[in-house]
Amino acid sequence: MSILVVGSVAYDTVETPFGRAEKVLGGSASFFSVAAAFFAPVNLVAVVGDDFGPAAMAAFQGRPIDLEGLERTAGKTFHWQGKYSYDLNSRETVCTDLNVFEFFKPRIPDRYRRSEHVFLGNIDPVLQRQVLDQVERPRLVACDTMNFWISGKPDEVRRTLAAVDVLLINDAEARQLSGEWNVVKAARAIRALGPRTLVIKKGEHGVLMFSEEGSFAAPAYPLEEVFDPTGAGDTFAGGFLGYLAGTPKVDEAALRRAVVMGSTLASFCVEAFSLDRLLTLSRPEIDARYRLFKRLTHFEEV
Amino acid sequence: MSILVVGSVAYDTVETPFGRAEKVLGGSASFFSVAAAFFAPVNLVAVVGDDFGPAAMAAFQGRPIDLEGLERTAGKTFHWQGKYSYDLNSRETVCTDLNVFEFFKPRIPDRYRRSEHVFLGNIDPVLQRQVLDQVERPRLVACDTMNFWISGKPDEVRRTLAAVDVLLINDAEARQLSGEWNVVKAARAIRALGPRTLVIKKGEHGVLMFSEEGSFAAPAYPLEEVFDPTGAGDTFAGGFLGYLAGTPKVDEAALRRAVVMGSTLASFCVEAFSLDRLLTLSRPEIDARYRLFKRLTHFEEV
Repeated sequence: MSILVVGSVAYDTVETPFGRAEKVLGGSASFFSVAAAFFAPVNLVAVVGDDFGPAAMAAFQGRPIDLEGLERTAGKTFHWQGKYSYDLNSRETVCTDLNVFEFFKPRIPDRYRRSEHVFLGNIDPVLQRQVLDQVERPRLVACDTMNFWISGKPDEVRRTLAAVDVLLINDAEARQLSGEWNVVKAARAIRALGPRTLVIKKGEHGVLMFSEEGSFAAPAYPLEEVFDPTGAGDTFAGGFLGYLAGTPKVDEAALRRAVVMGSTLASFCVEAFSLDRLLTLSRPEIDARYRLFKRLTHFEEV
Repeated sequence: MSILVVGSVAYDTVETPFGRAEKVLGGSASFFSVAAAFFAPVNLVAVVGDDFGPAAMAAFQGRPIDLEGLERTAGKTFHWQGKYSYDLNSRETVCTDLNVFEFFKPRIPDRYRRSEHVFLGNIDPVLQRQVLDQVERPRLVACDTMNFWISGKPDEVRRTLAAVDVLLINDAEARQLSGEWNVVKAARAIRALGPRTLVIKKGEHGVLMFSEEGSFAAPAYPLEEVFDPTGAGDTFAGGFLGYLAGTPKVDEAALRRAVVMGSTLASFCVEAFSLDRLLTLSRPEIDARYRLFKRLTHFEEV
């Protein structure tokens, strides 16, 4: 079953303690699409400028990613520049040039309208609802958002959340959105806004999922070399929703496997700049690391 | 099989956003002993002053905790006063009155010398080695330390670690001790100093264990009400080592169950001030929460 993703396709300039990458492929929809396409066909809706070259475009080619919805307009592609601290645990945005993304109005091609799964990347919550207005009864709607929208358009965020099945955000965003510090209380407050399932991403500390059947905790994979965390959250979302789209039944067990699959994909993402590691990744490598997660977390009853 | 624990028995004055507790029972050896005594007999070595009253003493009574090694000397009991931030994620030490603890020289009673398990609480690494000199070939030696000793007596810490099987420290201490930010690299460096097994406590983010057979990750239990985190780490250590002492064979599977048992005990500790929750706790409650950890972390293969 196919997945519609709406978000950003961008050029990133990233500095980490280990090096610098200049105007490489980035953006939430890019990481999401390549991760999800390991499991299900992806329908991509985003906008790029006339500077978006064939090298970047090649990332999406040869994969089940439909590009009819990748609009190209006059101007420059969205450019984000960031610099990570020595420990990779915090980053500073050096500049954000929205460029053509500033006027992005997602237009959903006809043949995308019946996508069974929808991922609303981190864009204006008003635009997120406009996307939902253009699709026909999806089986599952997942959504991301960020501090900028939570503080800037809180009512619009809430209106969007009322139509969402799964919300994927980080712990700071969960606290901000709910006004609760305690993560269990935050989860209850957020689930009351609409999403039956809340996935809280905690970076190197893993993921907590809250659903109708309770809570699920998965660690991040302990990696010796974390090279560039950019895109890990979007890659997680792609692995998560991709896995669900490729699964016959979305129940608690499937949601849990999807969290681990998302964590698996994210653990590869951070091994290199941009989408570099995702682009060389194979399904057997994915399955092997998923099994390492099983081994990492296994313990017996007493 | 019995456990020898050497550490502090103290009075704590604690302020959290939820209230204040004045001169209540605290100290690493107190939390450790009560937690461990659910699983195995404990031999306690510590020092208190003549102000240490029957109310505090009652915590150890009616449990398999041998008190011959609890020395009582003229003066006041060690007193620590701390204040937690609104989110409980950081704390400030308001005062530390070492009192009789300043001149603590652990003396191991004869009948303690054959304890099969030893826990060296967070005291001067020179004293930790003096304890080991007084015991006869224990099956397992576990140890805690802290930033004060890592920076103040680095060579002594290393000398002690060479004689230790299991080191239990928090993530900041692991980074400080190894000089490595990445936790996998830190673990390798620390294990090269002696401890075959390293348990890194990450508070609300759970525990990572590194052993000969690889790594194991366990979450903290997501609690809606965290009342007072004081003693959680020592309670974890007590549940961990207590469980191992009550288990016929210490292998990787037992170490993993011990990590979850430590996490289980710690999750109760933080529900109330001081040892209050541990003192009302029953073994069926412990086993029930252990099973919740199993449910919290379970996922299927793909």
